Amino acid sequence: MNRLKVLFHVNEPERWKIVLVNARNFINDVGQGRADVEIVANGAGVTAYAGDAAIIEEMKVLHSQGVVFAACRNALKMHALEESSLPGFVLAVSAGITEIAQKQSEGYSYIKP
Amino acid sequence: MNRLKVLFHVNEPERWKIVLVNARNFINDVGQGRADVEIVANGAGVTAYAGDAAIIEEMKVLHSQGVVFAACRNALKMHALEESSLPGFVLAVSAGITEIAQKQSEGYSYIKP
Amino acid sequence: MNRLKVLFHVNEPERWKIVLVNARNFINDVGQGRADVEIVANGAGVTAYAGDAAIIEEMKVLHSQGVVFAACRNALKMHALEESSLPGFVLAVSAGITEIAQKQSEGYSYIKP
Repeated sequence: MNRLKVLFHVNEPERWKIVLVNARNFINDVGQGRADVEIVANGAGVTAYAGDAAIIEEMKVLHSQGVVFAACRNALKMHALEESSLPGFVLAVSAGITEIAQKQSEGYSYIKP
Repeated sequence: MNRLKVLFHVNEPERWKIVLVNARNFINDVGQGRADVEIVANGAGVTAYAGDAAIIEEMKVLHSQGVVFAACRNALKMHALEESSLPGFVLAVSAGITEIAQKQSEGYSYIKP
Repeated sequence: MNRLKVLFHVNEPERWKIVLVNARNFINDVGQGRADVEIVANGAGVTAYAGDAAIIEEMKVLHSQGVVFAACRNALKMHALEESSLPGFVLAVSAGITEIAQKQSEGYSYIKP
């Protein structure tokens, strides 16, 4: 099996719990460090980066296992969130859709939980 | 960066607003004419083509920028919509799922807002 | 047109009806035996495999036409469903996300109805 690359798309805050469970189960299944995982939030999905501390704690654990967390700048602006106020592990991208399309063109599988 | 190709899938009428915002932000980010964008509606998603004039106006603007708008014929039939009654820019396809699969096989990235 | 390969992702029980309609319309459009179709259920989506008999009957018909039905073992455990209690046509996979990623890496198009 080739190294798998997976991109999760989150555009609703209430979907984060399931996305984090999916990412954790996936990493447990293939083995830590054996796949590339990125989670891209746009729309209202970005608000979780400034939300519930328990969720952010789970993100941190996954980040420490190599998971990339991205946030769409258009969505941050729309929700009046300053990049500087986000957790340090969050990567701001100019447009979430561009990031998602770019990653798929690089061989990432797309998953929308 | 290679030319990006993006396909948006809409199967619920209430998702159109976010799809149109996503498509506009994407085009603004990469530059008009610099990417291929198609929006495929099936299920109840097709009803927007015979719905709110403000939404159709936004579709027209995107269409003038090269965005392709497709409608699944099975869905049109199920919602008693005549192809001839749809805006001229709408492309009817025999089955939305076939269109989505075909485009992905041609290198389009799939996005479900 | 190359042989199309399509993977449907279901993580909510109420989405099964639309998934089955989509799969049926797709097969009718391209012709039976002319495409590879797999439906992967994870999260609460797996409960349908132990649910409504009419839905399971529809799955059986599609299975007889070559459609593969997969269930995530993590999700089965979380919903206290024994593999041995599922219909015989259901294929249990170690993790739904791994299956989805693997299939996409093999050229399957992803669709989330």
